[in-house]
Amino acid sequence: MYLKTGEEFIQDMIDMNFELYIDGGKISGKSVVNHPQVRPMMNALATTYDMQHEEKLKDFLLTKSHLTGETISRWTHVAQTVEDLIRKVDITRYANRRIGMCSFRCVHNAFPAMLATAKKIDEAKGTNYYKNAIEYIKYFQKNDLIGCPAMTDPKGDRLLKAHEQDDPDMYLRVVEKDKDGIVLRGAKLCQTGSVCAHEKFVAPSTTHYPGSEDYAVCCAVPGNAKGIKNISVRYSQDARRKEGLEWDIGNVKYGFHETVVIFDDVFVPWERVFMCGEVEFTGMLVNLAGACHRPTTGGCKTGWSDILIGAVQAYAEINGTANVSHVREKITDMIMHNETMYSCGIAACVKAQMYEGAGMIPDIILANNTKYVASKAVYDLVRLAEDITGGIITTLPSEREFKNPEIAHYLARFYAGADEKPAEHRARIVRLIENLTYGAGALCHSAAHGGGSGQACKITMYHASKGEPLQSRVSDAKRLCGIKEESE
Amino acid sequence: MYLKTGEEFIQDMIDMNFELYIDGGKISGKSVVNHPQVRPMMNALATTYDMQHEEKLKDFLLTKSHLTGETISRWTHVAQTVEDLIRKVDITRYANRRIGMCSFRCVHNAFPAMLATAKKIDEAKGTNYYKNAIEYIKYFQKNDLIGCPAMTDPKGDRLLKAHEQDDPDMYLRVVEKDKDGIVLRGAKLCQTGSVCAHEKFVAPSTTHYPGSEDYAVCCAVPGNAKGIKNISVRYSQDARRKEGLEWDIGNVKYGFHETVVIFDDVFVPWERVFMCGEVEFTGMLVNLAGACHRPTTGGCKTGWSDILIGAVQAYAEINGTANVSHVREKITDMIMHNETMYSCGIAACVKAQMYEGAGMIPDIILANNTKYVASKAVYDLVRLAEDITGGIITTLPSEREFKNPEIAHYLARFYAGADEKPAEHRARIVRLIENLTYGAGALCHSAAHGGGSGQACKITMYHASKGEPLQSRVSDAKRLCGIKEESE
Amino acid sequence: MYLKTGEEFIQDMIDMNFELYIDGGKISGKSVVNHPQVRPMMNALATTYDMQHEEKLKDFLLTKSHLTGETISRWTHVAQTVEDLIRKVDITRYANRRIGMCSFRCVHNAFPAMLATAKKIDEAKGTNYYKNAIEYIKYFQKNDLIGCPAMTDPKGDRLLKAHEQDDPDMYLRVVEKDKDGIVLRGAKLCQTGSVCAHEKFVAPSTTHYPGSEDYAVCCAVPGNAKGIKNISVRYSQDARRKEGLEWDIGNVKYGFHETVVIFDDVFVPWERVFMCGEVEFTGMLVNLAGACHRPTTGGCKTGWSDILIGAVQAYAEINGTANVSHVREKITDMIMHNETMYSCGIAACVKAQMYEGAGMIPDIILANNTKYVASKAVYDLVRLAEDITGGIITTLPSEREFKNPEIAHYLARFYAGADEKPAEHRARIVRLIENLTYGAGALCHSAAHGGGSGQACKITMYHASKGEPLQSRVSDAKRLCGIKEESE
Amino acid sequence: MYLKTGEEFIQDMIDMNFELYIDGGKISGKSVVNHPQVRPMMNALATTYDMQHEEKLKDFLLTKSHLTGETISRWTHVAQTVEDLIRKVDITRYANRRIGMCSFRCVHNAFPAMLATAKKIDEAKGTNYYKNAIEYIKYFQKNDLIGCPAMTDPKGDRLLKAHEQDDPDMYLRVVEKDKDGIVLRGAKLCQTGSVCAHEKFVAPSTTHYPGSEDYAVCCAVPGNAKGIKNISVRYSQDARRKEGLEWDIGNVKYGFHETVVIFDDVFVPWERVFMCGEVEFTGMLVNLAGACHRPTTGGCKTGWSDILIGAVQAYAEINGTANVSHVREKITDMIMHNETMYSCGIAACVKAQMYEGAGMIPDIILANNTKYVASKAVYDLVRLAEDITGGIITTLPSEREFKNPEIAHYLARFYAGADEKPAEHRARIVRLIENLTYGAGALCHSAAHGGGSGQACKITMYHASKGEPLQSRVSDAKRLCGIKEESE
Repeated sequence: MYLKTGEEFIQDMIDMNFELYIDGGKISGKSVVNHPQVRPMMNALATTYDMQHEEKLKDFLLTKSHLTGETISRWTHVAQTVEDLIRKVDITRYANRRIGMCSFRCVHNAFPAMLATAKKIDEAKGTNYYKNAIEYIKYFQKNDLIGCPAMTDPKGDRLLKAHEQDDPDMYLRVVEKDKDGIVLRGAKLCQTGSVCAHEKFVAPSTTHYPGSEDYAVCCAVPGNAKGIKNISVRYSQDARRKEGLEWDIGNVKYGFHETVVIFDDVFVPWERVFMCGEVEFTGMLVNLAGACHRPTTGGCKTGWSDILIGAVQAYAEINGTANVSHVREKITDMIMHNETMYSCGIAACVKAQMYEGAGMIPDIILANNTKYVASKAVYDLVRLAEDITGGIITTLPSEREFKNPEIAHYLARFYAGADEKPAEHRARIVRLIENLTYGAGALCHSAAHGGGSGQACKITMYHASKGEPLQSRVSDAKRLCGIKEESE
Repeated sequence: MYLKTGEEFIQDMIDMNFELYIDGGKISGKSVVNHPQVRPMMNALATTYDMQHEEKLKDFLLTKSHLTGETISRWTHVAQTVEDLIRKVDITRYANRRIGMCSFRCVHNAFPAMLATAKKIDEAKGTNYYKNAIEYIKYFQKNDLIGCPAMTDPKGDRLLKAHEQDDPDMYLRVVEKDKDGIVLRGAKLCQTGSVCAHEKFVAPSTTHYPGSEDYAVCCAVPGNAKGIKNISVRYSQDARRKEGLEWDIGNVKYGFHETVVIFDDVFVPWERVFMCGEVEFTGMLVNLAGACHRPTTGGCKTGWSDILIGAVQAYAEINGTANVSHVREKITDMIMHNETMYSCGIAACVKAQMYEGAGMIPDIILANNTKYVASKAVYDLVRLAEDITGGIITTLPSEREFKNPEIAHYLARFYAGADEKPAEHRARIVRLIENLTYGAGALCHSAAHGGGSGQACKITMYHASKGEPLQSRVSDAKRLCGIKEESE
Repeated sequence: MYLKTGEEFIQDMIDMNFELYIDGGKISGKSVVNHPQVRPMMNALATTYDMQHEEKLKDFLLTKSHLTGETISRWTHVAQTVEDLIRKVDITRYANRRIGMCSFRCVHNAFPAMLATAKKIDEAKGTNYYKNAIEYIKYFQKNDLIGCPAMTDPKGDRLLKAHEQDDPDMYLRVVEKDKDGIVLRGAKLCQTGSVCAHEKFVAPSTTHYPGSEDYAVCCAVPGNAKGIKNISVRYSQDARRKEGLEWDIGNVKYGFHETVVIFDDVFVPWERVFMCGEVEFTGMLVNLAGACHRPTTGGCKTGWSDILIGAVQAYAEINGTANVSHVREKITDMIMHNETMYSCGIAACVKAQMYEGAGMIPDIILANNTKYVASKAVYDLVRLAEDITGGIITTLPSEREFKNPEIAHYLARFYAGADEKPAEHRARIVRLIENLTYGAGALCHSAAHGGGSGQACKITMYHASKGEPLQSRVSDAKRLCGIKEESE
Repeated sequence: MYLKTGEEFIQDMIDMNFELYIDGGKISGKSVVNHPQVRPMMNALATTYDMQHEEKLKDFLLTKSHLTGETISRWTHVAQTVEDLIRKVDITRYANRRIGMCSFRCVHNAFPAMLATAKKIDEAKGTNYYKNAIEYIKYFQKNDLIGCPAMTDPKGDRLLKAHEQDDPDMYLRVVEKDKDGIVLRGAKLCQTGSVCAHEKFVAPSTTHYPGSEDYAVCCAVPGNAKGIKNISVRYSQDARRKEGLEWDIGNVKYGFHETVVIFDDVFVPWERVFMCGEVEFTGMLVNLAGACHRPTTGGCKTGWSDILIGAVQAYAEINGTANVSHVREKITDMIMHNETMYSCGIAACVKAQMYEGAGMIPDIILANNTKYVASKAVYDLVRLAEDITGGIITTLPSEREFKNPEIAHYLARFYAGADEKPAEHRARIVRLIENLTYGAGALCHSAAHGGGSGQACKITMYHASKGEPLQSRVSDAKRLCGIKEESE
């Protein structure tokens, strides 16, 4: 049994010597780890590792591997029971609430989908993917790793299939295969934490169809494999991280980092390949991975939004308005939206189905519903939060002004709260609300598109519903109003 | 083990010889059972009894009593596990979908609340309520009964407490106590199924405060006890039940019946009393009963709305529009609303808490959230249903016109559907949609106010949240933005 | 100058000797006028005629015909100015509020569209439709008539064009033409007031395409023309009208009546024909008619909903809760929805465009937006109304029970309101709310599909927007972010 | 007639030699004008001045002063007709759309309220405020000035009145009066453009009550008056303005600047005072100013959102998805929200009322409704925009990376759009969408709290409705359901 500490994780990241294109240049190694836009994410992940050494959290966060019998982090576990699935939602909520953002430990959500699909392919094609997958998971658990899911392709013209694009690399593809392995070319976008993770887990972003065999690839590579190039993206308020200020950041210790990852002919050995060319199984993989992942939204966005609710309540207390009726109504509506997202995630777990040899896979309709609901609810949460907070969310002076001795006394007075709450409290809380709503940790982005857009989930729900689930309802309706079908 | 059949249930109802004030007069016995506004509810309940004799449903609907070890209907069971609670939601969804309306078998939802409260009162006061409650439940299970919850008081001026009202009977109260029992006076409104149930389960509709001791009463009486007067209410489209038509009714076999019940000095023996005067425990009873009952909403409204979705899909197929993109989007949104209500109910069960000697009581915040969410979602469901159905929902001729030979050929032609679907199908489906949305089975009424209004649930959520749940979020928010409290 | 009175209108209707299929048989003449399901609509229209003789309303309701210079009712006027258009919205709001339902005086909304289209056809084809239209309007004004718009066709399979349907009569069509006139065959559905109007105004329900020339017909016929058959439809709670009760009806004097109208070879003389076969102009007619009519929604639904707001406020006063904070918030939200619908209608009028020789035609995007907004807002209005009203909306005893001497004293006590408001007041107000939301006057039906569905309006908005209005926004966006187009 | 040019405006600002606390220090004069966080706002205002010299806009933007007969900018005009009011909405929409943000030319909205109130005070108290106000407006028009409204006070504990606060300066107040003038002390927050405006227009942020006389002050001072201290605030993404990049800014030329303004004993001569101590008139001033200003929201947010819609449509075209059905539905919903806000503003103008000697004042209910509606609609607009745009809104590399020669070819390929649209177009459009939704120009802040919060508007609507408007609806409802009041 090996459970990594935060410090060990940071050392891993230094040792991996990532290269990162950022600020118009390229940096590497410790400079990546300590770059002001990367370090907050390192801190967040280190905290998730440190948590598992906290006595009071051990029962909550650790379990036994069903593969090895070893004690492992639940963040590397493959759910085997409904309780495992529910725990995943609860852990995500807890961790996100603890760090006030995405805890980025959900790559293992893909494992049951990968296993189930690999098994099916092996059965149909006599391949050996399932064993590869099992071995990989054991390796992952044993070394207590973090993986970065690499799904989103550039996609070019959305109306064309992968192999119909003008540029053949608009979806990641296999450009070479030999006896040792395969070579990947293309790019994956929206790569949260690609320079903060040991592994990249590569999978298709969408169902592929015959003709697109080269694009049907699922595999794993170390994050620092040769040919991988990480290009930093920028998000709202990223530049504030470079100013050396604390108040203005809102979430003072933790934050995101995201990249575009170029795969410039990256070699992957066969033992890390779980699908290669079996285009007819991409739909299964994509749909099951979605079903496995999306209930987590019910923990993810709620943990985050727990902090938003707490911050807004804190702000109302600073204003002396926490007991005003419309504020109470709005706080309760925030709780309603939050617990509804959570409930959707929990229910998807309860109605899960066991895939033998793989794991529990949540109900596909309820799972996609979770994400679809969340993709709308967060905007209501932001609206209610801003409603209670007021115009100050965009009109607060910087910490630098609060500390300029010539004017500090004005700001200290005019931003003081009810019950002698100091202006600094007001400023810090407002910056946290700003961070969660418009800033570096914007909840909406994550809920709108992270892990699949609301529309993608909606379409999946429709397709999963339109056969028996919808037609059996039609039959029930006809029965009740007295319609006899010929076939009856 | 005794499991009633539908036929036995109907006979019970005849035997009870209920009196009912209706149509400006009074009827009794068989005339009640067969009155066109009452019979559809009798049918619905008879169907619920018959279900438990269907082979394929036995595992689903039956269980062992934790009190007697006997096989009983789950509709008389006191939930002892999370699985019991989830099953309750699923059974409610199944039954409501089967009959296209409320299945009215949820009085047992109140039992854990009654037991927990009785136990607490006994501990504090040395009373004997808990034993009464246990014996009553055994009796209820053994005879496979239906109970009608009698909660809603007339309430008079809503801003005054029970004992402050001009008319002391605006809340049901105890007007006499002697060694044998107590005497009740007042009324209970919104009494679904009072002439279709063996028992009345009387409980306060709201928390009472010192001074209102006479109003703090929880007990059970046979539905036909001396002094009880049932006065029929009328609901949308009730008069259609008297016309002898089938198409125009929509749900041809099943329907509601509701009454106002007058308690004109009704005697209740002490062994059926579970609270009498302990005003400080009314809050506990009301809140726990709400928590126990409200997750059921997640099965109740969804079973109903499953039929609405089925009917709307059937209608789109008649129109030939089932594959039009906006129709598919709207059907999916209906599914989203439906599964979200369901998910809220399931999650409240998952996060339940055991009350020793009583049973599992769902999470109070998640339970109230379920009802609050449903109280809004149903209007969106109705809006989407009417959107897809079209103006015909209010402009369809009666079955009488469809059968008038002079014009029947016109209507047969002009109401025919795509793919040669006959006009009768269109007419029956439209009437079912009308029934569910604007008619006798209007989903909205049940979701808006049945089992507590959305606002009542919202207020309960706020009060359950405002202590630790909200303040621990405040602390987390402060921690993340770097606010140190003096006390830290 | 001739301005009809209500009494004269009723006499007209008797004189027209309408035949109506209803209750499984056929009635005619006075029996139609006095049928309990028809009479309330007669009353409503008679009231609109009587209004124009009220001294204080003359300035508001009368104007000069721009065709004859005679003083006429604004309900027969062709709007020539923005003020005329705004007045139409205001009159509709006033009248609907006065009678608590649709005032059914909006057929003249179609006149500018008919004139503009007739003029265009004449210019292109050398026909004589414009003169016919002008003469018809003069006749209509001079005799102060009511017209029933006959638009909605049965439509069969919605994915097929008119001439592709299995049954050629699924859209109304011209089956014969000779030197005297044309002969119509088919049916029109959703015919509000067809037995309460002097004239039928026939127009296509949708744009037709080449091949469907026979379906491109716009004309006028007397409501009692030979071959017209009126078949009554039924709506929610229609049967209550036959019980002789007053309280239970809600809106005691006024109500709707709707039919299906069969055109069994109806002759129309050429001087009443405004389009016949010019299929390429049906789109213009349909779109302009929609633009002319839909701002009226902004007065129509609001007048109705003014009554709903008033009734709900009255009910809160009976409960003593009118000053409770959440009730005030909800009443204000009702006002918000109401004034927003109104504002949309007003703005569409303000941005109208003059069609020379025809009249002012409201902005097509803003006009369709009005209806689209209303088609959603009404469900929120109903939700808020039911929220405040409570479960009583579906659990109130009938007037018959309130008047049964054996139980009247119970009901009088238990339904009494705060401040000694009598139970009768509560009962009447609840029935009015029921009428407006679930009953005979259901606001939702009218807003959802009356005058074109929300979806139809949405599609029209998109098509009207997608050229210049959208592309000029694209250009502005590109300019601001520094994108230079090649063409620039 | 004098109409300033943009260049003259910039020179004015240099000449005023503003001092600004920013970046932890203090700057002044040209350094303020050219500070990267200030200059974009200077550009925006200069553009508004240049517009009035564009030939094609003259009729649209210019009018005659009703006070002097001189040709003036409509941005300094006091509306005398409904057309004037509507034009204001249309000009605001046009200007905001042109610059993609708030055009900041609406201080004159306060003038009719100021005049009407000054007149009433003079009549009641024999003061001379009205003449001061008239002279000030003439001066303002003659010199074609910009004024910065100074309303929002720090407010301290929101539950206490101004004079009850621990710190007496929590609302701006008069600390001295002598024969020459008055002295102001306190602060005004949320001061958009305080270093980009010639004048400060000071008015109360809320109704004051007896005891708070010192706080009842309305007056004007030059923006650079002695004692005024401008402290810069920071908003989302402000730091990007300092990086010298163009793409990443989104709106490349225009932007906001906001401050906190300290009034450290600022002298105002009597001829610039329009209220001083007449606490009983603060309610009138605040309510009328709100009514005058809030319809502008209907032009303001829509102009802005026109750009958002254009940008989103442009983005869908880059993706090749502009004709996908769900994208079209969402674009249309964006148009619906946009035109609804606009319609609300227009209707409030149409139903305006003339205040003699002052000007046209929009309907108070419809005006407040406009802002209340907008305060919710913008979040739906942002949700829909982000839905269509996708995850790229937060995962796009910086311009610096796009221009790093080592990786530029990757980004050029992988961000290319359909139809060979270059990656630069994608990047610029995404940054514009980011700017409008989460960035420096966030539409939500402006709609949520600028010019009064949604809740403030809602409360005003309730109070304006609760007398006659609500009670006359109650009477109509009672009449329709047959309730006779004693008084009738």
